[in-house]
Amino acid sequence: MLSRVSVIGGDLRIANLTELLAKDGSKIYTYALEKANNLENLKHIEQCKNIEDLISKSEIIIGPVPLSSDNVNINTPFSDTKITIEKFIPKLEGKTFIAGSIKQEVYNLAEGKNIKIIDLLNREELVVLNAISTAEGAIQIAMEETVRTIHGSNILIMGFGRIGKILANALRGIGANVYCEARKNEDLAWIKAYGYKPINLNELHKYLNEFHIIMNTIPSLVLDEQKLCLLNKDCLIIDLASSPGGIDRNAANKIGIKTIWALSLPGKVAPLASAEFIKDTIYNVLKEL
Amino acid sequence: MLSRVSVIGGDLRIANLTELLAKDGSKIYTYALEKANNLENLKHIEQCKNIEDLISKSEIIIGPVPLSSDNVNINTPFSDTKITIEKFIPKLEGKTFIAGSIKQEVYNLAEGKNIKIIDLLNREELVVLNAISTAEGAIQIAMEETVRTIHGSNILIMGFGRIGKILANALRGIGANVYCEARKNEDLAWIKAYGYKPINLNELHKYLNEFHIIMNTIPSLVLDEQKLCLLNKDCLIIDLASSPGGIDRNAANKIGIKTIWALSLPGKVAPLASAEFIKDTIYNVLKEL
Amino acid sequence: MLSRVSVIGGDLRIANLTELLAKDGSKIYTYALEKANNLENLKHIEQCKNIEDLISKSEIIIGPVPLSSDNVNINTPFSDTKITIEKFIPKLEGKTFIAGSIKQEVYNLAEGKNIKIIDLLNREELVVLNAISTAEGAIQIAMEETVRTIHGSNILIMGFGRIGKILANALRGIGANVYCEARKNEDLAWIKAYGYKPINLNELHKYLNEFHIIMNTIPSLVLDEQKLCLLNKDCLIIDLASSPGGIDRNAANKIGIKTIWALSLPGKVAPLASAEFIKDTIYNVLKEL
Amino acid sequence: MLSRVSVIGGDLRIANLTELLAKDGSKIYTYALEKANNLENLKHIEQCKNIEDLISKSEIIIGPVPLSSDNVNINTPFSDTKITIEKFIPKLEGKTFIAGSIKQEVYNLAEGKNIKIIDLLNREELVVLNAISTAEGAIQIAMEETVRTIHGSNILIMGFGRIGKILANALRGIGANVYCEARKNEDLAWIKAYGYKPINLNELHKYLNEFHIIMNTIPSLVLDEQKLCLLNKDCLIIDLASSPGGIDRNAANKIGIKTIWALSLPGKVAPLASAEFIKDTIYNVLKEL
Repeated sequence: MLSRVSVIGGDLRIANLTELLAKDGSKIYTYALEKANNLENLKHIEQCKNIEDLISKSEIIIGPVPLSSDNVNINTPFSDTKITIEKFIPKLEGKTFIAGSIKQEVYNLAEGKNIKIIDLLNREELVVLNAISTAEGAIQIAMEETVRTIHGSNILIMGFGRIGKILANALRGIGANVYCEARKNEDLAWIKAYGYKPINLNELHKYLNEFHIIMNTIPSLVLDEQKLCLLNKDCLIIDLASSPGGIDRNAANKIGIKTIWALSLPGKVAPLASAEFIKDTIYNVLKEL
Repeated sequence: MLSRVSVIGGDLRIANLTELLAKDGSKIYTYALEKANNLENLKHIEQCKNIEDLISKSEIIIGPVPLSSDNVNINTPFSDTKITIEKFIPKLEGKTFIAGSIKQEVYNLAEGKNIKIIDLLNREELVVLNAISTAEGAIQIAMEETVRTIHGSNILIMGFGRIGKILANALRGIGANVYCEARKNEDLAWIKAYGYKPINLNELHKYLNEFHIIMNTIPSLVLDEQKLCLLNKDCLIIDLASSPGGIDRNAANKIGIKTIWALSLPGKVAPLASAEFIKDTIYNVLKEL
Repeated sequence: MLSRVSVIGGDLRIANLTELLAKDGSKIYTYALEKANNLENLKHIEQCKNIEDLISKSEIIIGPVPLSSDNVNINTPFSDTKITIEKFIPKLEGKTFIAGSIKQEVYNLAEGKNIKIIDLLNREELVVLNAISTAEGAIQIAMEETVRTIHGSNILIMGFGRIGKILANALRGIGANVYCEARKNEDLAWIKAYGYKPINLNELHKYLNEFHIIMNTIPSLVLDEQKLCLLNKDCLIIDLASSPGGIDRNAANKIGIKTIWALSLPGKVAPLASAEFIKDTIYNVLKEL
Repeated sequence: MLSRVSVIGGDLRIANLTELLAKDGSKIYTYALEKANNLENLKHIEQCKNIEDLISKSEIIIGPVPLSSDNVNINTPFSDTKITIEKFIPKLEGKTFIAGSIKQEVYNLAEGKNIKIIDLLNREELVVLNAISTAEGAIQIAMEETVRTIHGSNILIMGFGRIGKILANALRGIGANVYCEARKNEDLAWIKAYGYKPINLNELHKYLNEFHIIMNTIPSLVLDEQKLCLLNKDCLIIDLASSPGGIDRNAANKIGIKTIWALSLPGKVAPLASAEFIKDTIYNVLKEL
């Protein structure tokens, strides 16, 4: 528990986080969150008049995740206020600033001012926890977009990193026949150890016609036109990989294979769970400081 | 595999079933399915001109599941034709008729005419398989309607019958903390054996404030106003039980607890899986004949 | 919790049960358990001098599970005392007597004496809970007797009753490829619902050469000489069914297939767990009285 | 598949491996395996008269895992022949030599002779696969040494590396309440993601009295006398960590806590599975060459 903390800007996850911190008993000061309905009439929460006031109130200032979408202003979807990074960061002198996806220029602006900056998205535990939400979001999409049950479906997961591991565990848990594609023998051994069917990338083409659903987590082209042609026409592809994704979407479109590129799922499908994960991570950060 | 079979009326599941049977190599005669797009241009499928023609072609006639919604006409959502039960049934002389939810009056109409009638919804294996689809539909609703992940949520399942058992297994599989309520010591022993947390109905009130989601399968009032008052306001209730359901919906509404009464999920969330389950059941039926 | 209870005779499970009841706070009177080391120096436990004394102390008298092995004396492995059923039972006048596997002659002896007799092995919840221990005992044997891991082994379970269901769940849980044989379509649907590979008894012969281990729960001959010949020579058979078991053991012996007939596992592999299950069942019984 | 391969020395796993390779169709030359019963009368296997003969027959020479126990002779438990490392290694000129746990001096002996040396125990996939056998061996010990069932037991796993991960998955699969201890927030996030109960090393003392079984995989002292005193007297400790292990065994002994130090389980509990894992790894190695 924190005794007092300031929160500036942020989306529904940050609004939920603010509520959770207040319920834990922290005194919270907010700015640029005035339209967050969930914070109205909550105990322990006080809106500040301006940024200077907000910063002066606490040693810890929490900002948006991600900090900015345009690299100019910090994200404030629950406010009409515009706050430029350039003006805001230098005011944090002597404080600890916690936010997500922080670019180099922010560190530059903070230089020499004794500002401790912590990027939540560099915290491995948060990345793992977010993978839980991503996996569930992917399963929800699969349920909505198919006329079969996940139970009994043949599902290929491409890539056995964080999201791949958690997806495989959950999909098997609801009765799918889970196939995992990987490149490294080590990963293939893990896939076998967990009881999924391992598929070496080199042999992927032999199995492609068996799948009802493919979920990709690899951020580079794996399913090119040649491979897409081997799929059943009613196979659904859900691409969870960041740009450029793992699918030749033009080719898929031409062939008639439905492809859904699903990004940023945690904030969309489970904003409250995401807020809890962020809270846990912040508590870890502060314990380490 | 059937050599030849006639299909009359039915919804998307029956249209899918027809396609599956044709793909298995059966010769299929249809009537009152002319608007089912999936059957266009398929091999082995032939539309009949009238009911007499349809019946004369095969020994086995498959009808809708359920057979009728109004007890007058058989269900033909993919056709403009109206077919009354009263005129249709007596024409089945000497044949085997397979459909779902067949009322006593149908048996009366068939009397003395050597018609073998099989109600698919009396087949325990189909009821079990449909429970798979129902459980998945319930999970999909839970994912869509909550801001948390299923993973890590405390979920109560009321009733440990077919749907309860399959739901519990799937929810645990995606990481929920699963609590199962039952009345009989035998059921409570099974709940323990499968590793869920058993809750005796008598002690349910002690636990009600812990749940994020409640899924009910008991078709009689369990959650009355008194019990509903013990829930967290943001608890989601999904009622899967047939009328009257297990929830005092008026009270839930008044208190502000969101309740979703979700019926007939198999046909809605997984029409193709449902068709496959019906197909498997029909094959079982015919093996036994 | 019971305020006071008398315990007479019984094996390690009853000795453990006595200890558990005492630790729950009951005052316990014992007879014919004087060699049970675990009861020495325990609080709340008092040895009685004779049967009459024991019976007079409590309303509830707990006896062995099973009550007798020879139908003459009650089982007292932790005592040199011999107690004949014929003399013991009539003394229970006006009391409740709880034991296991009680024969008709006992009920005859009790007639007209206002004795309430409860056979624990007729309690479905105890039979289910004991199946947990049986399943684990079977897995322990499989681990000890094979040079492979359970993980990755093809294991056939014959019969999908209580033990079959719990075995399947546990074996899959440690990574086996689980096949379940059943006769009824309903059971085959459950096997599919839980994600095991269903095998219809009629088609069993087609699969027999695939298995590393077979676990039988059906108490009538299923694996006859003809079927045994289809097995791999290094297949291990564990027969959990009561007499006559499901295997032609002579034939298996002749062919060179290792067969282990494992009976009464709960008391052997997990006497403490068994005692806890008996305790829970007794508490249920008393709640119902 | 290999066309021809030579095998020298080794224990039951290597004898099994030799058999598996022969069954895959490879021509196998052996030396110092003359007492391995399983190789008698097998097709494709030929005993060589001497080492020179053996080496000349194939490009690939497979040796023991581990290569040596005394750093002087290579391990040949199925032979009376003694073969010193010093004389053997230099004869491998121009060949590929595959064995396990190869010390630096072996590489020194091979220098300048164009010998390709592959240490199987440096292959991550084999280490992962061996963890499957280790985990199963640990579970077998737990079943044998306790009077409870694993099902329903509170089990602590210390360390969330390869063995910890696989153990946790298997133990949960048979119904244990699984607690995992780790130090890093990242590991704790994974423990949560997989649905086990995470315990931070700093807070371990708070939970120690809850466990029925503790399985340690950390090769440095974690359970010192102070912590051991917090355990229940009937808690069983299974230490899977290599020397010095994670338990103060003297203290455990003094306090009366049973501790089993179980090393080298794969070869003991599942020699055939281990042989298969070695075979798969060798095939991977040769594909990469």
